[in-house]
Amino acid sequence: MDAPYRPKITRTSRPLTTEVEAVNERGEALATPIAGEHPLTLYVDKREIVTLMTLGQAPEALAIGYLRNQRLVRSIEEIAEVQVDWETESVAITARKQIKGLKQKMKKRTVTTGCGQGTVFGDLMEEIDSVKLRDDVTLSEDTLYGVLDAVRRHETVYKSAGAVHGCVLFDGPEIIYFIEDVGRHNAVDAIAGQMWLDRVDGSDKIFYTTGRLTSEMVIKAAQMQIPFLVSRSGLTQMGHRIANQVGITMIGRAVGKHYLLFTGHHRFTKTVMPTMLA
Amino acid sequence: MDAPYRPKITRTSRPLTTEVEAVNERGEALATPIAGEHPLTLYVDKREIVTLMTLGQAPEALAIGYLRNQRLVRSIEEIAEVQVDWETESVAITARKQIKGLKQKMKKRTVTTGCGQGTVFGDLMEEIDSVKLRDDVTLSEDTLYGVLDAVRRHETVYKSAGAVHGCVLFDGPEIIYFIEDVGRHNAVDAIAGQMWLDRVDGSDKIFYTTGRLTSEMVIKAAQMQIPFLVSRSGLTQMGHRIANQVGITMIGRAVGKHYLLFTGHHRFTKTVMPTMLA
Repeated sequence: MDAPYRPKITRTSRPLTTEVEAVNERGEALATPIAGEHPLTLYVDKREIVTLMTLGQAPEALAIGYLRNQRLVRSIEEIAEVQVDWETESVAITARKQIKGLKQKMKKRTVTTGCGQGTVFGDLMEEIDSVKLRDDVTLSEDTLYGVLDAVRRHETVYKSAGAVHGCVLFDGPEIIYFIEDVGRHNAVDAIAGQMWLDRVDGSDKIFYTTGRLTSEMVIKAAQMQIPFLVSRSGLTQMGHRIANQVGITMIGRAVGKHYLLFTGHHRFTKTVMPTMLA
Repeated sequence: MDAPYRPKITRTSRPLTTEVEAVNERGEALATPIAGEHPLTLYVDKREIVTLMTLGQAPEALAIGYLRNQRLVRSIEEIAEVQVDWETESVAITARKQIKGLKQKMKKRTVTTGCGQGTVFGDLMEEIDSVKLRDDVTLSEDTLYGVLDAVRRHETVYKSAGAVHGCVLFDGPEIIYFIEDVGRHNAVDAIAGQMWLDRVDGSDKIFYTTGRLTSEMVIKAAQMQIPFLVSRSGLTQMGHRIANQVGITMIGRAVGKHYLLFTGHHRFTKTVMPTMLA
């Protein structure tokens, strides 16, 4: 059997933290680790698309995932090469065939970008109506606790330097990808890109994020066909509305042995203690 | 003396929190407050500019501040009216004269927007070189502690529902504005808008944010001429670099009686205990 198609990509990443000096309240000068942040300008067939500010942990996957989540490309087969060059702070993406309607899509995007500022919101809301998540998969409370424990034990930039968000793709309680970035949308985009590269099907996976469950986070998880969305943080009104609409199983405030199950109760199975069966 | 010019604006805000039901780990159904999140589409003279996702606490100030921080308008005098209509989830901004080069500016913005995804980065970096912050103002450690205490005591959406960031403008230890939003850039933009509306000069003020000190946050504070930037969170490498470049007094990890002073030491005065003078 032939291996599935995979674009040719560089494998670059930046040092994730660096140290600067800071003076604390006792007047002591301390070497303090801080998170990296670098501009990375995306070009598709030499056309400038966007400049992302990124930690630089997985820049190739980020570039691919950005194009995926912005709906600028429809499949990994459309991409021939992804070449990151940190000297010029750029990533050159080469398409196998000319990407149709790129200019038109870029134009539409103009009015709807940002961080809580924008989003490709209008188009995505239309698309979300066609998303159908699997209903034959379940998440047990034990697996949820396993997920939270795995996150807690993982070594992270956040623990040493803060100032980043993490997104994690889980297969049961096992970590598949753990990606951090200075922007939480970069972290989820990088996971989307890596899933495409590795042909990972999202339809039975668990998506964990340290960030809040806003509309964009719910939309992106649903678009990746992922039925389980878990966060240690809270959620917003529109995040809740869209989660209800698409029927995703959404759990917030999940830390240690605590959680709040907000939507998609039908896929969640609570551990039944033996004493409760007596 | 005539009152300074002020555009005609609506005064609308959305309910900041709403309640949804969630089930916790003990199987209890709880009414849980969650933060509002609403799309708000900005139109300038009927031209669609952007759709922001916002908590809706100060939508008029947000619209004005967005135009200010994106450099789409250069002064509050350019704006005649700001009319928010939550029925249509839109804000109509009317200019007093036609805004020059709006189309060109919008075009340039295409490639550089976002949340860690983009920014109007290139242009802003050029501009930042011309920013000169005041050096004849100081922040004492006592005032810093007063700021942190005022933030701690303030009633917030964050305390009840989480999922928002807060930005606060201080005059010494006194709060001038405390604005929360689902996007941290919205919160800082709304403060920028309110400062224009009220003709507040930033050059001796303190800007506090619950969010991380990334490049965009430092750039926006500097553009408002604010010499003091304080966060309870950490910072990124580029935030640090730009803070150094522009000479802003930047303090991170500021909670209770702890802080880390990163840059702009010359404006910070440490409290000298009487015993140290003995």
